[in-house]
Amino acid sequence: MSITTEVPTLVRVDLWRELGQQLRVDAIRATAVSGSGHPTSAMSGADLIAVLAEKYLRYDFDHPDHPNNDHLIFSKGHASPLLYALYKAAGAISDEELLTTRTLGSPLEGHPSAALPWVDVATGSLGFGLPVGVGIALAAKTVDPRPYRVWVLAGDSEMAEGSVWEAFEHAAHWQLDNLTVILDVNRLGQSGETMHGWDLDSYLDRSRSFGWAAFPVDGHDVEAIDRAYTLATAASERPSLIVARTVKGKGVAAVENQPGWHGKVLPDTEAAIAELGGMREIRIAPSLPPDAPPRRHYEAAPVTLPAYELGTLKSTRRAYGEALATLGDARDDVVAMDGEVSNSTFSGLFAERHPERFFEMFVAEQQMIAAAIGFGVRGLKPFTSAFAAFFSRAYDFIRMAAISRASLRIVGSHAGVATGEDGPSQMALEDLAMFRAVHGSTVLYPSDANQTAKLVELAANNPGITYLRTTRADTPVIYAADTSFSIGGSRLLRATADDDVTVAAAGITVHEAVKASELLADEGIRVRVLDLYSVKPIDRQALLESVTATGGRLVTVEDHWPEGGLGDAVFAALADSGLTIHAVKLAVRELPGSGRPAELLHTAGIDAEAIVTAVDALMGAAPW
Amino acid sequence: MSITTEVPTLVRVDLWRELGQQLRVDAIRATAVSGSGHPTSAMSGADLIAVLAEKYLRYDFDHPDHPNNDHLIFSKGHASPLLYALYKAAGAISDEELLTTRTLGSPLEGHPSAALPWVDVATGSLGFGLPVGVGIALAAKTVDPRPYRVWVLAGDSEMAEGSVWEAFEHAAHWQLDNLTVILDVNRLGQSGETMHGWDLDSYLDRSRSFGWAAFPVDGHDVEAIDRAYTLATAASERPSLIVARTVKGKGVAAVENQPGWHGKVLPDTEAAIAELGGMREIRIAPSLPPDAPPRRHYEAAPVTLPAYELGTLKSTRRAYGEALATLGDARDDVVAMDGEVSNSTFSGLFAERHPERFFEMFVAEQQMIAAAIGFGVRGLKPFTSAFAAFFSRAYDFIRMAAISRASLRIVGSHAGVATGEDGPSQMALEDLAMFRAVHGSTVLYPSDANQTAKLVELAANNPGITYLRTTRADTPVIYAADTSFSIGGSRLLRATADDDVTVAAAGITVHEAVKASELLADEGIRVRVLDLYSVKPIDRQALLESVTATGGRLVTVEDHWPEGGLGDAVFAALADSGLTIHAVKLAVRELPGSGRPAELLHTAGIDAEAIVTAVDALMGAAPW
Repeated sequence: MSITTEVPTLVRVDLWRELGQQLRVDAIRATAVSGSGHPTSAMSGADLIAVLAEKYLRYDFDHPDHPNNDHLIFSKGHASPLLYALYKAAGAISDEELLTTRTLGSPLEGHPSAALPWVDVATGSLGFGLPVGVGIALAAKTVDPRPYRVWVLAGDSEMAEGSVWEAFEHAAHWQLDNLTVILDVNRLGQSGETMHGWDLDSYLDRSRSFGWAAFPVDGHDVEAIDRAYTLATAASERPSLIVARTVKGKGVAAVENQPGWHGKVLPDTEAAIAELGGMREIRIAPSLPPDAPPRRHYEAAPVTLPAYELGTLKSTRRAYGEALATLGDARDDVVAMDGEVSNSTFSGLFAERHPERFFEMFVAEQQMIAAAIGFGVRGLKPFTSAFAAFFSRAYDFIRMAAISRASLRIVGSHAGVATGEDGPSQMALEDLAMFRAVHGSTVLYPSDANQTAKLVELAANNPGITYLRTTRADTPVIYAADTSFSIGGSRLLRATADDDVTVAAAGITVHEAVKASELLADEGIRVRVLDLYSVKPIDRQALLESVTATGGRLVTVEDHWPEGGLGDAVFAALADSGLTIHAVKLAVRELPGSGRPAELLHTAGIDAEAIVTAVDALMGAAPW
Repeated sequence: MSITTEVPTLVRVDLWRELGQQLRVDAIRATAVSGSGHPTSAMSGADLIAVLAEKYLRYDFDHPDHPNNDHLIFSKGHASPLLYALYKAAGAISDEELLTTRTLGSPLEGHPSAALPWVDVATGSLGFGLPVGVGIALAAKTVDPRPYRVWVLAGDSEMAEGSVWEAFEHAAHWQLDNLTVILDVNRLGQSGETMHGWDLDSYLDRSRSFGWAAFPVDGHDVEAIDRAYTLATAASERPSLIVARTVKGKGVAAVENQPGWHGKVLPDTEAAIAELGGMREIRIAPSLPPDAPPRRHYEAAPVTLPAYELGTLKSTRRAYGEALATLGDARDDVVAMDGEVSNSTFSGLFAERHPERFFEMFVAEQQMIAAAIGFGVRGLKPFTSAFAAFFSRAYDFIRMAAISRASLRIVGSHAGVATGEDGPSQMALEDLAMFRAVHGSTVLYPSDANQTAKLVELAANNPGITYLRTTRADTPVIYAADTSFSIGGSRLLRATADDDVTVAAAGITVHEAVKASELLADEGIRVRVLDLYSVKPIDRQALLESVTATGGRLVTVEDHWPEGGLGDAVFAALADSGLTIHAVKLAVRELPGSGRPAELLHTAGIDAEAIVTAVDALMGAAPW
């Protein structure tokens, strides 16, 4: 219930003005505590947020999990003091809490953190919040119809990010009239004026050409802002953009519209507060969301995964698609999206069976990851897929997803030189490094179809960012369908009590290692093959046991650059073991070209022959 | 000299038509060899390229280094068979060479490779070639005025990539009327229709709203194509876009405008060639570029780097800016660009001194890297800078730069939790992993101002991708100004003949390690501090010597996630040493929040106190 619903308009307008000043004052106070932060970027948006919060936002701060709550995303995350000032005005946090901003242990971080119950995603990397908002709005238009609106406060500087235009395309394509972006055009970036300054037409023209409804407004005229929001929320079958001309540092002459004040506290806090009319104690109660059915309950029936006969040929990418389609039969919270290569990643098999839960994201990997995060915010289990190499296009979004404590599954096909003729632009050779270095991530790299299917099922409930690497080529099924696998597990292939050398492999190189072990057996050398399909977390215990059993002799072999992948993971896991290791790391060291997969594995020195050579060298070296 | 300049128009039109068919036939033949590739994507663009090559392109194939040659970039790199067919028609390659396409060892890879003398950058990752084209065009409009034109063949699928819109913004902003993009709208992506199909207006409206001159055309009507090129090349002070309606697989009924034929060879090569009228032997000689002064000779005078007094406080980010400005005094081939944070990275110091060689790239990291690649193509030495975390936005471009054999320097500030109050979105904690896993890269992480200055100078001539990580906070100068540093080197601090433990550190943790060694000295424990400022290549020899000297006892400490950074690099370097290692890896394991830098280093367990604890544990463990 709003305390303001019965006041006449004139008084309400005054309330908005006063609330805007209060938000400025509190933003200044919040940043003064740590002596750092972005008060001037908060002050430009204060009137826009005041009107929004008091009249338009429908949000139950006591129940942040209300399924019909609006979503408010500060894509310009550096305006966090404005967000925290709003939380205080709405009674969600106390003044004491506000004044912990940016101090150790406070959830009121320098940029919005998902540790706060009202924050959907961490922001602070420009151009990230808006695409996530598209995902949240898309969920309400498709798999879980809801009456909420997504409001995104965006900065003019971030309009330079390509990711923003991916979001503009997709929001129009999906006709997201439940999405309103408030563009705070304060003209000044961090180090100077933006490319377009106060040329509002540049934003209006661009957004309209992308199919949006766009409305210019003076961002400090609360009555005009009110009218603009009314127009925006009336837009039908298209998203809406408010292009607001604002003044950075608005209300404090010492900094107002001045360059050089980005990310700096005001020179005189007390004087600034006085100039803004002093502290106020306005408390607002945003409108509550409409009643509606409870949060959708998703079904999760037992999954009967596909089972593959030993020895049959099946690519792990196809096994991914088959497992995902089956998973989708069993549980209706699974959604999938693809970067316009679903016939290569085989997510198309899911699309055929569950078209209503499949989303074609075209060649826009950043928007794909952002949409997945948005679906996750709404309680769904997103799987995304593309050529593994092209997730490098979305690495910042993956980084921010982890910081946002999001859970999503990323499946990259066409890994390594085994990709073959297409050449290096299509070969992921850095993806293991890239995904290992994501906070809290899981990195899986199956070698056969049954293993893939099991790992896909496990991935569905795995928290954080789960990456699964698949291979383009058909490979033989080497595990029986009832073999058990686990995140953090491994499988020992071809082990005896008196093995000479451990070969640690994953994915495509498991097959090469098995071949090498057969060749070496002919020489009388016993190799145990350790399949480290869980690259992160790695099965340290199994690794220790194997390496101990083989007297410290170890070969790692991976279809990846030498840095940051399987070998690095193995050696780091052994670093505190106190074991004496004699190891060879086989990896791709030269830039590959085109060729058949087997030719390229050979040229790179990661095939069975190279493993044999490495093992022979280890066996030949003193003291053996 | 063109063989066609004297033929009347009617005949020339017939020539274009015939040449278009020849390019189709040869594209089909080139892909038939390996049984893989993208003939249908080549066939849609064949008429566009035929007219371009015969009449508009000014290129001396015998002298690919001619400074006034036009640049032709296939941003839709999968249309490479069309490019190779053009090379054959121009006499640059033989038919025998054409028929090596996609086979092992051939420079005619599945996607264009920079191993070919006429290819500026590798393409194949959609949305990459166009932004590089912007960089090449920008060079000709600024530091090295030249009459060349940059032609980019783009696909409609890649218009979904945000990077394309960064390029559209920048090309208009810099008024690049020497850039023409040919958009091959064949309607069909890999797995289905594109978002906009044949709605040419969607592309015309968007590009015009971004400030481009845009012209629709039937992409198979050679006379209309001719007129469109004439209009495009007449556009003044703005880039131009040809929006060509084309048919995928044009000319062969079995595949023409059919879904399901992306990236597949034709079902019947012989029949297809017959349907196209058989093989032809047309040979064209593109117009030569205008005569002009020889390739610009850049000066490289001796550099007098800034020198800092021992003990003074100076952040490495500021030292970067000061060194770069000085480097710019000495050599005029150094150009710098920044992602709108030049007052934080201190590239602004270069901008003040050399404004004509500084480029504000706004918050568009992908376009920044692409522009740097473009400047590199033109023989310049680009330095790029931004917050280190935000280079994750451009990781695919960095990957493609390496595949393109480009040389550029990337400087990331605000590394690690030492960034402080701004919180995790602003902290690079994966950048060492990310840059280590780039082919042929160099990764540098200086700890003081004198070291930074030396490494900046070395970076200027270092081939490949050179990454330099700087720190936000002021830190004491610990090396005398005449200390020598090298790529692949290290420095041993505080070593004695009978040290107990090696602490391997870099950057901010060097200071913590020095503090820890002082604290431990009070306990009677002798620690040697190894400054591994060259994270890649790492100084394996020095590492081996130190670790051997300290009986295998080793602590690594880094302001980075545990994966892929300094610790992994160290343990991988020791893997084949045969040494018995007892190591502790200190790294950032929990998601940080806001706080003062010292607080966050402490909370993360990577400060002097944590190092002391780790050393004590190693000394207390059996058998010591």
